[in-house]
Amino acid sequence: MLFSGRAHPELGEAVARELGIELTPTTAHDFANGEIFVRFEESVRGSDAFVLQSHPQPLNKWIMEQLIMIDALKRGSAKRITAILPFYPYARQDKKHRGREPISARLIADLLKTAGADRIVSVDLHTDQIQGYFDGPVDHMHAMPILTDYIIGKYGKDNLCVVSPDAGRVKVAEKWSNVLGGAPLAFVHKTRDIDVANSVTANRVVGDVEGMTCILLDDMIDTGGTIAGAVKVLREAGAGDVIIATTHGVFSGPARERLDNCGAREIITTDTLPQSTEGWDNLTVLPIAPLVAKTIHEIFENGSVTTLFE
Amino acid sequence: MLFSGRAHPELGEAVARELGIELTPTTAHDFANGEIFVRFEESVRGSDAFVLQSHPQPLNKWIMEQLIMIDALKRGSAKRITAILPFYPYARQDKKHRGREPISARLIADLLKTAGADRIVSVDLHTDQIQGYFDGPVDHMHAMPILTDYIIGKYGKDNLCVVSPDAGRVKVAEKWSNVLGGAPLAFVHKTRDIDVANSVTANRVVGDVEGMTCILLDDMIDTGGTIAGAVKVLREAGAGDVIIATTHGVFSGPARERLDNCGAREIITTDTLPQSTEGWDNLTVLPIAPLVAKTIHEIFENGSVTTLFE
Amino acid sequence: MLFSGRAHPELGEAVARELGIELTPTTAHDFANGEIFVRFEESVRGSDAFVLQSHPQPLNKWIMEQLIMIDALKRGSAKRITAILPFYPYARQDKKHRGREPISARLIADLLKTAGADRIVSVDLHTDQIQGYFDGPVDHMHAMPILTDYIIGKYGKDNLCVVSPDAGRVKVAEKWSNVLGGAPLAFVHKTRDIDVANSVTANRVVGDVEGMTCILLDDMIDTGGTIAGAVKVLREAGAGDVIIATTHGVFSGPARERLDNCGAREIITTDTLPQSTEGWDNLTVLPIAPLVAKTIHEIFENGSVTTLFE
Amino acid sequence: MLFSGRAHPELGEAVARELGIELTPTTAHDFANGEIFVRFEESVRGSDAFVLQSHPQPLNKWIMEQLIMIDALKRGSAKRITAILPFYPYARQDKKHRGREPISARLIADLLKTAGADRIVSVDLHTDQIQGYFDGPVDHMHAMPILTDYIIGKYGKDNLCVVSPDAGRVKVAEKWSNVLGGAPLAFVHKTRDIDVANSVTANRVVGDVEGMTCILLDDMIDTGGTIAGAVKVLREAGAGDVIIATTHGVFSGPARERLDNCGAREIITTDTLPQSTEGWDNLTVLPIAPLVAKTIHEIFENGSVTTLFE
Amino acid sequence: MLFSGRAHPELGEAVARELGIELTPTTAHDFANGEIFVRFEESVRGSDAFVLQSHPQPLNKWIMEQLIMIDALKRGSAKRITAILPFYPYARQDKKHRGREPISARLIADLLKTAGADRIVSVDLHTDQIQGYFDGPVDHMHAMPILTDYIIGKYGKDNLCVVSPDAGRVKVAEKWSNVLGGAPLAFVHKTRDIDVANSVTANRVVGDVEGMTCILLDDMIDTGGTIAGAVKVLREAGAGDVIIATTHGVFSGPARERLDNCGAREIITTDTLPQSTEGWDNLTVLPIAPLVAKTIHEIFENGSVTTLFE
Amino acid sequence: MLFSGRAHPELGEAVARELGIELTPTTAHDFANGEIFVRFEESVRGSDAFVLQSHPQPLNKWIMEQLIMIDALKRGSAKRITAILPFYPYARQDKKHRGREPISARLIADLLKTAGADRIVSVDLHTDQIQGYFDGPVDHMHAMPILTDYIIGKYGKDNLCVVSPDAGRVKVAEKWSNVLGGAPLAFVHKTRDIDVANSVTANRVVGDVEGMTCILLDDMIDTGGTIAGAVKVLREAGAGDVIIATTHGVFSGPARERLDNCGAREIITTDTLPQSTEGWDNLTVLPIAPLVAKTIHEIFENGSVTTLFE
Repeated sequence: MLFSGRAHPELGEAVARELGIELTPTTAHDFANGEIFVRFEESVRGSDAFVLQSHPQPLNKWIMEQLIMIDALKRGSAKRITAILPFYPYARQDKKHRGREPISARLIADLLKTAGADRIVSVDLHTDQIQGYFDGPVDHMHAMPILTDYIIGKYGKDNLCVVSPDAGRVKVAEKWSNVLGGAPLAFVHKTRDIDVANSVTANRVVGDVEGMTCILLDDMIDTGGTIAGAVKVLREAGAGDVIIATTHGVFSGPARERLDNCGAREIITTDTLPQSTEGWDNLTVLPIAPLVAKTIHEIFENGSVTTLFE
Repeated sequence: MLFSGRAHPELGEAVARELGIELTPTTAHDFANGEIFVRFEESVRGSDAFVLQSHPQPLNKWIMEQLIMIDALKRGSAKRITAILPFYPYARQDKKHRGREPISARLIADLLKTAGADRIVSVDLHTDQIQGYFDGPVDHMHAMPILTDYIIGKYGKDNLCVVSPDAGRVKVAEKWSNVLGGAPLAFVHKTRDIDVANSVTANRVVGDVEGMTCILLDDMIDTGGTIAGAVKVLREAGAGDVIIATTHGVFSGPARERLDNCGAREIITTDTLPQSTEGWDNLTVLPIAPLVAKTIHEIFENGSVTTLFE
Repeated sequence: MLFSGRAHPELGEAVARELGIELTPTTAHDFANGEIFVRFEESVRGSDAFVLQSHPQPLNKWIMEQLIMIDALKRGSAKRITAILPFYPYARQDKKHRGREPISARLIADLLKTAGADRIVSVDLHTDQIQGYFDGPVDHMHAMPILTDYIIGKYGKDNLCVVSPDAGRVKVAEKWSNVLGGAPLAFVHKTRDIDVANSVTANRVVGDVEGMTCILLDDMIDTGGTIAGAVKVLREAGAGDVIIATTHGVFSGPARERLDNCGAREIITTDTLPQSTEGWDNLTVLPIAPLVAKTIHEIFENGSVTTLFE
Repeated sequence: MLFSGRAHPELGEAVARELGIELTPTTAHDFANGEIFVRFEESVRGSDAFVLQSHPQPLNKWIMEQLIMIDALKRGSAKRITAILPFYPYARQDKKHRGREPISARLIADLLKTAGADRIVSVDLHTDQIQGYFDGPVDHMHAMPILTDYIIGKYGKDNLCVVSPDAGRVKVAEKWSNVLGGAPLAFVHKTRDIDVANSVTANRVVGDVEGMTCILLDDMIDTGGTIAGAVKVLREAGAGDVIIATTHGVFSGPARERLDNCGAREIITTDTLPQSTEGWDNLTVLPIAPLVAKTIHEIFENGSVTTLFE
Repeated sequence: MLFSGRAHPELGEAVARELGIELTPTTAHDFANGEIFVRFEESVRGSDAFVLQSHPQPLNKWIMEQLIMIDALKRGSAKRITAILPFYPYARQDKKHRGREPISARLIADLLKTAGADRIVSVDLHTDQIQGYFDGPVDHMHAMPILTDYIIGKYGKDNLCVVSPDAGRVKVAEKWSNVLGGAPLAFVHKTRDIDVANSVTANRVVGDVEGMTCILLDDMIDTGGTIAGAVKVLREAGAGDVIIATTHGVFSGPARERLDNCGAREIITTDTLPQSTEGWDNLTVLPIAPLVAKTIHEIFENGSVTTLFE
Repeated sequence: MLFSGRAHPELGEAVARELGIELTPTTAHDFANGEIFVRFEESVRGSDAFVLQSHPQPLNKWIMEQLIMIDALKRGSAKRITAILPFYPYARQDKKHRGREPISARLIADLLKTAGADRIVSVDLHTDQIQGYFDGPVDHMHAMPILTDYIIGKYGKDNLCVVSPDAGRVKVAEKWSNVLGGAPLAFVHKTRDIDVANSVTANRVVGDVEGMTCILLDDMIDTGGTIAGAVKVLREAGAGDVIIATTHGVFSGPARERLDNCGAREIITTDTLPQSTEGWDNLTVLPIAPLVAKTIHEIFENGSVTTLFE
């Protein structure tokens, strides 16, 4: 049985369509003071339940809704509960950057466990280590094939250069390089001021990008400051076209304006979060539902999720 | 050490003032996509930490903030962590009204435990049984003395009648009756349609209220529908003045308009949630900080909280 | 597989008969010093085990026996263990009435969980919130239809009045009123001295009962003091016949004498606890086994327990 | 703070006297249906609490009382809770003798942990391995010095022989032998029918006992069948005087009669369980309170319990 | 699905052969610094997984390997995980012999649980109580029938005497005596210095062994000091042939030399640990695989393991 | 109280010396079959215990020893237990590189928690996210200041270039760059075949290193293949001197030979693992004891560990 939270109903319906099933009818609404109420309209006893929730703003609300749905399934005697979080919230707070900070990414895993989740499915975690934050199976899907297939189809493999917008994601760029025919690597050397949220100072490119079509990639783009700065530095370094690719298009606050004006030829993302291309010409949104649906199918049939990548 | 979330900073400061201490300096802000960041500016190692959070709208956000603060304290080696929730969120979802519902009030207790809370302090829980939802000490404070002292001071004890707005709180009315000199009891016989949030159909008064000054009480007033309906029924039944008393003035949506126009002489509440009397003539707000401060003091000194009520 | 403790073997057999199965043969006896020994005579490996125990006196013994049976099932590799407690022991100690008290109802839930119970089934919990004390599914059955069907069959719906013996159960009386054709409500305003066990001081009726057939209801009747006092007050208030209805006929100590002499026309209960009508003319015992059997059937078949009430 | 259950109040008072303190005043009584109520009359907040309970018949009741006391201390914010069980109940069910049996001794440890005990103190566990059943510190006291000092004082060390009543306790007899000057060993070869409670068939002595003063020892004597049979076999084998020594004098059912008539010169025990020598000439009861008090003292002062044995 | 660690691959293959299945292909190797790497080559999702590991030297390594295999199965979504430890490591440290010692046997059980094991299977635990150290089902197999069948077949039942090498295992000898036609019992009275590993001082025989064929038994033989000493004492006491029988032939350090020269006619063991008879004439190794395979079969089919002994 | 395992006794003594205390005397030895025995020679009751263990080969043994020491402290009533692991074992297995792998780094954290550790102290975790694997405080120390102070003292800040040996540690190189006066960055683009342990194929340098003194850094050096390959590639790219700096000098198998011959001018490490410079001219070992000692001091005094870095 597939259940969808209210954060991104189109995704739930798309996944159900891919699976050829119906979403289990669910009553969900807010009480006047913001408390969330949930009830399932069919018996869930003994079911293999998948609870899909996306986490756009207001994300704390959607986290609570998913926890409450899981609690209702546990108390309604579901046999197994799988929480699907295409975009894992608080993934960036996966360590103490300085003393006396929380590790919110671990907290999220613990809250899901406490509510009753037996397993987690997510797409492109900010760091792979988050898999280890949950005490149980985590099926970690990758959107890279969806994005690289599109890029190869549209731009070919020639003259590509894979660029990481900061020093921390060069490893991921290396994986893309392998898929994109051994394209050369580069990264932007920058510093981030962790006291001021999302503030970034881009510096200079390490690696040679002159005249190349740069694939600038990141797991998520939030306010777009880092990425827009990177595009600017790349252009200054003589890069040709810059294509931005990201799994999670968070696009908060000034992101849309920044990305529209940054000089990138195209911005490619998926709909792990609700997306709209309205009035945004160079944004391409690729559907994530097929990947999520295939994963659910394999889990339900006890097949191998690993083979999805081969 | 006393820590305050951002939901109701005036309450945190008032409690600190009562205790003669400073709130521990805390950096807290929202990232652009709504994720909350918290860091304490002083070492919390080995501290006896009290984390005060109020839960007005958007309450799911404030719940998450409190959980994140507790996580940061746990990882920062606080010795003991006490979560203070003057208004316990999701208290009304303390049972499955029908099948396949969550028990969100228990979920909240479990989430607090998972994050790292050792103890809970709350005021006037919707039902006393919520104490049992937490696996550890729960100090359950009562605002009744604050409210009844004010009522006796202003209206005396004569000709009072204590009225419960529904059948489920007659027991509490009985306790007030004892304190208010054995005032007679009444209640309003109504039905609530649980599918439609906050919808209430008030019926008729059981008990004799003719000519009496009615103290209409509830632990919390949300949209005010039940209470406003109760005032109407009381007036039709010949009641004299109607005084509304409630610990938690949630006052969501149409509450203010309904209560202003319902014919009650005065509405008395506390500031367990942020309150403003601006433009609301018959609202009286009594401070809850002294009660919270005294409780913290007794816990810290290993004194008896029980004696606060004697 | 259905297992029955020794507290009320007739109930176990009646439930097995309703289900058309045999109780799993079980060796159980007391060692000379009172320690209980249990062994199952057939393999329980991989079974969906239901452990039924009633809780009459000496109830601490029967609690321990049920815990020991559950432990033996856990260690014998049962797949799923459902503890059935038609009468939930210690349900009245569901909160701290004053400081430094236990919350024994929560403790019972935790002990069952620790021993190995995956799920609980109970009938008419003293408060609905006890559902939330167990970290897992709780199927909460209601005997009201059994009792109201009998009452309507014998007394019809006319001229009935539903009376709660104290302020705390007016809400339940309201539900009965709905089923009994909207019969008017009343309750007895009393105080209970919690230091002296079961001591009750009945006061006066709130609501109009003159000339009516009063259905006086309670979830359980222990020593009968409250109920007998309520009958007396009702008669003084001019009530016609008084019919007492209760799910759990505990009938401790002086209960039988008090109820026999209190002036009630009939006392109706179920056999969630062992009952005997011998020498007690006005006691009617309705069988609970069909309800328990239907619940087990639905759980085993992963059907909906919720529909049992519709 | 020292708390005593109601099973053996004299022991609680004796321990308090040894420590020079008062038992914390506690209200405890049974409700009419057998449910136990407990409340402490002084604040226990922050206390280092020791909860002493003995476990004579009806032992399931006294187990529940101790669990309830511990729950009340946990919820009343005691800092550390030590459960003292001089006689550990269900110690004999420390393994599955055959399939589908419980391991009740482990269950008891888990129940204590669940209720809130941080540590356990017990005397002469039936098997040492029970220490490992509790997830936390277990201080395991030995009454052997109390018993052997008495024996040496009265009978000297000459011509003694240490006898185990069955094959399972020869190891313990070996320890006594060391303390009693290297006295020779013997044991009785018997079979126990585990289907019939306490039934024992004594056979023959292995080892030479002719003309010797036999110290026949066991950790506990329940119905006395094994021991009385052993005395008989020893006398038949030509033994001189037979002295029975046991830490836990359970003395259930026919024990008193059997032991009185078995031909033993003296039966020595301690008061880990309530004892009376009234009308029982050859029973000697040695006080356990000094040992328990010394242990509490060392725990409270963070001293070494190990040194108590040196 | 059956998985085998690298400690004793022949045993894994023998068990698989008995079951008529293949071991699941597994990649396992050591990194250069000794860290172990494991990956399964087939999907384990939804499987009923049995993880067999033997524990010869270096046993800490093999413990870690089994824990890591279990973790990989848990994270790979196995449905149920059964850890098979034919020889349970650290079984001798099943209690605190003196203060400030670990209870390593309990620790092993907890580590297995933490890694993700749902159930344990073991053969001839050093003490039966170790069953209770695991919070879940423990299937405890006995090799006695394998050993006694062989002994009866070769030596018959006449003139046998069953001897325990120390006072602590007389109980086990008594069970063998029953199977071997009521053969008489004896034991060796010795002391062990626990500060010096494996150091033993054998003393003298209790019981009459003159001219008899002695079956000297122990659950495990480590350095062989105790056993070789016992043989010597038995010969001095006039015993005829001495046959040594043990389930777990650890045979550490000087064991082989000691046993070869001790004068025993035959040493019988099983291959719960890897064994070689090369250059050791009087050693007989009986296969344990049939017993392990039958146990796995019964668990998988939810049959009764208890009946394996009848 | 400070306890040291046997893996690296010199480190334990050095830390004790820095703190001006004595290591608590501990008996620890191996039984003949490899089982570890531990006992503390002084009472640990109520102590604030720090358990230091290094993890060189055979590291599985030293992990078990630390777990056993922690278990003994828990059962011996230590008040708080801090596990110190200067080199965190299995840190590289911090995620599933492919399907059906363990997350051994999380497993280690869970095993420490299960044994009884309340807190962890470690130095330069392979990834920061490992902090989040432990459910409790983790004090994560950094050796960078020790290493960079030495480098600046010896080589100055001029003409330095910071090089990461692979794409995954460029972020760390960026931090060093900040400390070393904004030295330029470079990294080696390579692929690692995860099926063959420690096999690495080094490719080419990204960034400009010509004529510069390269600081080649890594958190740990195991077989040295990656690093030696990186030195070679750097030299081919025209680098001047190459200085290797690493916190954890594992130096397994061929490491010593490879590093000796790779052309690096100096190899700098610390003694988080036992080190010997004998016959290895270009190896410099800096002591880690002062950092560990300062951390213990701050934890014990409830000071701020964060300030150690400022």
